[in-house]
Amino acid sequence: MTASVFDHPVLSGLLGDVELSSYFTAAADIEALIAFETALAEAEAAEGIIPAAAAAAIRDRTRDFTPDIDDLRAGTARDGVVMPALLRQLRQGLDPAAADALHHGATSQDAIDASMAMRLMGVSLVLDRRLARLGDRLAQWGIEAGDADVMAHTRMQAARPTRFGRKLSSWADPLVRCRLRREAIAPQAFALRFGGAVGDRAELGERADAVAERLAAALGLFPAPGSLHSERDGIAELGHWLSLVTGALGKLGQDVVLSVQTEVGELRLEGGGSSSAMAHKQNPVAAEMLVTLARFNATLVSGLHQALVHENERSGAAWTLEWMLLPQMAMAAGAATRIAEELLETLSLAKP
Amino acid sequence: MTASVFDHPVLSGLLGDVELSSYFTAAADIEALIAFETALAEAEAAEGIIPAAAAAAIRDRTRDFTPDIDDLRAGTARDGVVMPALLRQLRQGLDPAAADALHHGATSQDAIDASMAMRLMGVSLVLDRRLARLGDRLAQWGIEAGDADVMAHTRMQAARPTRFGRKLSSWADPLVRCRLRREAIAPQAFALRFGGAVGDRAELGERADAVAERLAAALGLFPAPGSLHSERDGIAELGHWLSLVTGALGKLGQDVVLSVQTEVGELRLEGGGSSSAMAHKQNPVAAEMLVTLARFNATLVSGLHQALVHENERSGAAWTLEWMLLPQMAMAAGAATRIAEELLETLSLAKP
Amino acid sequence: MTASVFDHPVLSGLLGDVELSSYFTAAADIEALIAFETALAEAEAAEGIIPAAAAAAIRDRTRDFTPDIDDLRAGTARDGVVMPALLRQLRQGLDPAAADALHHGATSQDAIDASMAMRLMGVSLVLDRRLARLGDRLAQWGIEAGDADVMAHTRMQAARPTRFGRKLSSWADPLVRCRLRREAIAPQAFALRFGGAVGDRAELGERADAVAERLAAALGLFPAPGSLHSERDGIAELGHWLSLVTGALGKLGQDVVLSVQTEVGELRLEGGGSSSAMAHKQNPVAAEMLVTLARFNATLVSGLHQALVHENERSGAAWTLEWMLLPQMAMAAGAATRIAEELLETLSLAKP
Amino acid sequence: MTASVFDHPVLSGLLGDVELSSYFTAAADIEALIAFETALAEAEAAEGIIPAAAAAAIRDRTRDFTPDIDDLRAGTARDGVVMPALLRQLRQGLDPAAADALHHGATSQDAIDASMAMRLMGVSLVLDRRLARLGDRLAQWGIEAGDADVMAHTRMQAARPTRFGRKLSSWADPLVRCRLRREAIAPQAFALRFGGAVGDRAELGERADAVAERLAAALGLFPAPGSLHSERDGIAELGHWLSLVTGALGKLGQDVVLSVQTEVGELRLEGGGSSSAMAHKQNPVAAEMLVTLARFNATLVSGLHQALVHENERSGAAWTLEWMLLPQMAMAAGAATRIAEELLETLSLAKP
Repeated sequence: MTASVFDHPVLSGLLGDVELSSYFTAAADIEALIAFETALAEAEAAEGIIPAAAAAAIRDRTRDFTPDIDDLRAGTARDGVVMPALLRQLRQGLDPAAADALHHGATSQDAIDASMAMRLMGVSLVLDRRLARLGDRLAQWGIEAGDADVMAHTRMQAARPTRFGRKLSSWADPLVRCRLRREAIAPQAFALRFGGAVGDRAELGERADAVAERLAAALGLFPAPGSLHSERDGIAELGHWLSLVTGALGKLGQDVVLSVQTEVGELRLEGGGSSSAMAHKQNPVAAEMLVTLARFNATLVSGLHQALVHENERSGAAWTLEWMLLPQMAMAAGAATRIAEELLETLSLAKP
Repeated sequence: MTASVFDHPVLSGLLGDVELSSYFTAAADIEALIAFETALAEAEAAEGIIPAAAAAAIRDRTRDFTPDIDDLRAGTARDGVVMPALLRQLRQGLDPAAADALHHGATSQDAIDASMAMRLMGVSLVLDRRLARLGDRLAQWGIEAGDADVMAHTRMQAARPTRFGRKLSSWADPLVRCRLRREAIAPQAFALRFGGAVGDRAELGERADAVAERLAAALGLFPAPGSLHSERDGIAELGHWLSLVTGALGKLGQDVVLSVQTEVGELRLEGGGSSSAMAHKQNPVAAEMLVTLARFNATLVSGLHQALVHENERSGAAWTLEWMLLPQMAMAAGAATRIAEELLETLSLAKP
Repeated sequence: MTASVFDHPVLSGLLGDVELSSYFTAAADIEALIAFETALAEAEAAEGIIPAAAAAAIRDRTRDFTPDIDDLRAGTARDGVVMPALLRQLRQGLDPAAADALHHGATSQDAIDASMAMRLMGVSLVLDRRLARLGDRLAQWGIEAGDADVMAHTRMQAARPTRFGRKLSSWADPLVRCRLRREAIAPQAFALRFGGAVGDRAELGERADAVAERLAAALGLFPAPGSLHSERDGIAELGHWLSLVTGALGKLGQDVVLSVQTEVGELRLEGGGSSSAMAHKQNPVAAEMLVTLARFNATLVSGLHQALVHENERSGAAWTLEWMLLPQMAMAAGAATRIAEELLETLSLAKP
Repeated sequence: MTASVFDHPVLSGLLGDVELSSYFTAAADIEALIAFETALAEAEAAEGIIPAAAAAAIRDRTRDFTPDIDDLRAGTARDGVVMPALLRQLRQGLDPAAADALHHGATSQDAIDASMAMRLMGVSLVLDRRLARLGDRLAQWGIEAGDADVMAHTRMQAARPTRFGRKLSSWADPLVRCRLRREAIAPQAFALRFGGAVGDRAELGERADAVAERLAAALGLFPAPGSLHSERDGIAELGHWLSLVTGALGKLGQDVVLSVQTEVGELRLEGGGSSSAMAHKQNPVAAEMLVTLARFNATLVSGLHQALVHENERSGAAWTLEWMLLPQMAMAAGAATRIAEELLETLSLAKP
């Protein structure tokens, strides 16, 4: 075990997600922070706020920049955010004019929120593709199953037979709704949250909104009329969405666990987990993990709602709590979608 | 204190909501359950599934029906749901044909989910009206405040002055978004969840969907292609929404608490709470309660996400958990909106 | 449904607890608050801080006092606590000296925390007796079952047979540990939290600790060296304990639900819940409710831990959150112990 | 950002803990798992269950064993637990008799629970030492502060002056209680949970308890009469304890944040965090992080209570959830104690 199963050399085999974890490396974060600074400089140059030469120098600087991670770690320990140290490193290698232009009118939260939003939007698109595949797979299975029946269970008792296809729909439909919801929440969840020192964009004067619009377009984020520094509903929406994804798959996993019970056997698993003590067992590990991941995100989502109580123009306490929860919830949704796809490959109706 | 502050004779003055509590009485619940049964009978009569005379008899019966609450309580203790006992009571007073037609093709969950949805939709509309008024009040204040400045605080330290109007926007905008979200989640949150014994509408054959559509229209609920008995994302959405409402107001409340601190005094409260020990104090009780209610809902929302792991066609355990959480979250949102309106009446900028 | 299932006229049959609910009425709360004020006056008289005649007048006054609930509700709405209004009512009927002596050196939190502690200690003793009976019942069943085997299940798959007695022990042992833990946490959970206006007992000077000791003895609470106004670990301990109780019974309930599945049938239930749609079903309602109640308390316990972040000498926001959570957690533990006792009466091994 | 701030190359500077993270590496886990297997073999040899030569061979084998991490990851992905793959690796290098003797009568959960308990006991001792130092530091400060006063604040309003020493006690006393609680929970939290395939120790017959006692002694864990495989109250206790630690420090942090507000200034911080936008600011980053960490653990503790609902003899779903939560809660407590020690070094009374 490690602090996080998602990064653990051994346990990540069970609960990790290689594709998604690339979004949460320090390198990916720094790359996005630098993309923010470069795009900001170009937007400000385009609006005549900083010299075009400064923007060009900043772009050049970021192209070959190698961060000093130890220094960033020490800076973050002191400042609570990586930006002062990162900006110091970037400025070492810029002429004074460009050094002055860098990060002009911006604050740490602008860059850090943008980096998070850019990467989580990427994550959400990966999840969306997987949800689409899962939906297709379940629909395909429904066609194959035709009018096969399974026993319906209500309140954990056998009730009467029902179409297996209906059970498949009850697994697939929430996934379809999750895909639609992703689009609905995107403008808030993946907004550019740009506001300068105290969130009012005052440093950039009349050109502030024009800069923000250029910046959003350059970074692929949604423009927002204000900074949203202290309005975190879009973040809670995203966490909620991630937990709806794991919840929908947790329900599927729970149903599979119940259906493959030795005494029930309506579904059949190929290649379940083996036991160190009982050679005859085939454990429904993948299905169990879907339940685990659902309960994990159902637990963590509460913290994002607590973080809505965000003091004044920027709360260090509430904001940092988001960093502790959101990436893990995204990883859990990644693991759940990955595992669900693998699980469906091994699952069949016992009585066709 | 009592099990719930919302119903407590004394504490409900602080944390209750008279208007909303009417939606959560046993009488309101039973009325909605009966409305479901009547509308179902009429829909089935219109589709030729039960005799028109039976539907008429059912409507007559429900008009003058007085439930035996003790019997309902005893029945619920035994069955886990009120419906078997309620139906028994209704049938005493129906001719055999109508007794037979009553609840035809339906199951307890159909009625209970419908009652919850009907009442929570009403609740959501009350909340929506209050959010509208709160938004208007904040906007009006913004106009009155003109270009007045307040000190912005980031990470709990004075930063630099900013327009008070911007602070007001940061309180109002999430409320506007909550109103839009209410509309977005309504089709799932306030869906008719109708499916019969195991959720497949099989008892009603080819006419099932037509009955469901008539029923949804009669009850003012949104039609759904399936029963949603075991797909509870719409419920989690509603809980999440209620917590976004309390979270937005909790942030407002926290800011007010900080602004009216003795040492800060940027905002002024008229008529705060008095102390039993210190006569000079004016406690920002209303603002504190907004924080409390936000943290309450942020806590409870987790349970609704846990309840997404809904076993098979109907989970008694997960479903009942919803009943324990959702009404209280609605009451908390009711209290928060009520208190916020009262708070704004007493609040002014200390330095105009 | 209502805001709280525990007080609902119908649903309380399923999830309520008549014995425990008596601890959470307004009357019980006011009685305890008055007991606090009377005992305080007597302790202060005994220490020569207030005149003996004043203490006697206060005792007389409280003997025939009938609170004006509407006024208390209005006062609580304004002040955030009931005490200013309650003291005002009590003082109407006291001579000036006694009116002055009433609540001398105390603050609202002293009285309200004491009332909560007194009642929750009573609740904990009721729960303790039930846990003892449940443990005895399980032990008795173990003796009766002798060397009967049941199939053990690991990871939701049949593993190999094991003694049924061992399964019974795995249900009973956590209950025994809960009983021991109740004693371990009692000194903090049921402490007298007495401190005056800001928690330092300064109003009472050198006699403060002597008053506090007399007061604790009179109220049956544990003395504490300080006021604990802002140190809420004892409250979190109690909530944690309540959730350990429901968790232990939730595990028992989950095992029963799994064992009485139609396809498994290792345990047999007499008289499960009936269904409005399927006459043949016997639903394991009681066992399901144990799972529900466990998940309910597992959800709410988080809020009590959030409330540990208690601002300065007294936090209105964090303190009030306790009132919203703790009584409900107690009621859930009450319902779970009640239901577990009922469940065990109806349960037998299918194959003896 | 990364999945976990605790392992992140940059953010771990802020929220990590070098000393504690060593307990959660894969290497530390595997080392503990191997220690379990070796001690088990020796205990079984001592009881005459396996040949002494086999135990010796096993010890030799583990001394120079280098795990194939890729294979362990793949095995864990398949089996849900690392043990089948790890045992396979260990057996490659053992003669048939020793290979057969390895893990005799044990199951994966025995080893994995033991590894977790051994490491978390180590963690708890580190935390205990830090709590002791923090308590001493606060007590020392109390002596230095003498009869200095600070303004007490109730309900976020200035109340009246109180001894600063009392405020220090309200921070220190919960830490002292946490130390006492660690000892109280240790027998359950750090129990040897040994039971074989289905938790009844049946594979080892009459010698089972003797083996368990030897094993517990060798591993430094507390003996338990049963396997506790499915009784997880000791785990919830530990999580609760970790959250009490972070909660106590979160309260301290919140008080510091409030006291160093620009407008309040009763406490003074040396060397707060700097801002990327406002050079004049000194952000109370360390104090904020204490609040963040408290809210993080308050969120996660809920999941451990959910995991009390542990199906039958072993629940893959509930058990794995513990792995996802407990190490992180431990790391949060580590970070909080580390940060609190650092914070106290920089803090002084503004007006002596």
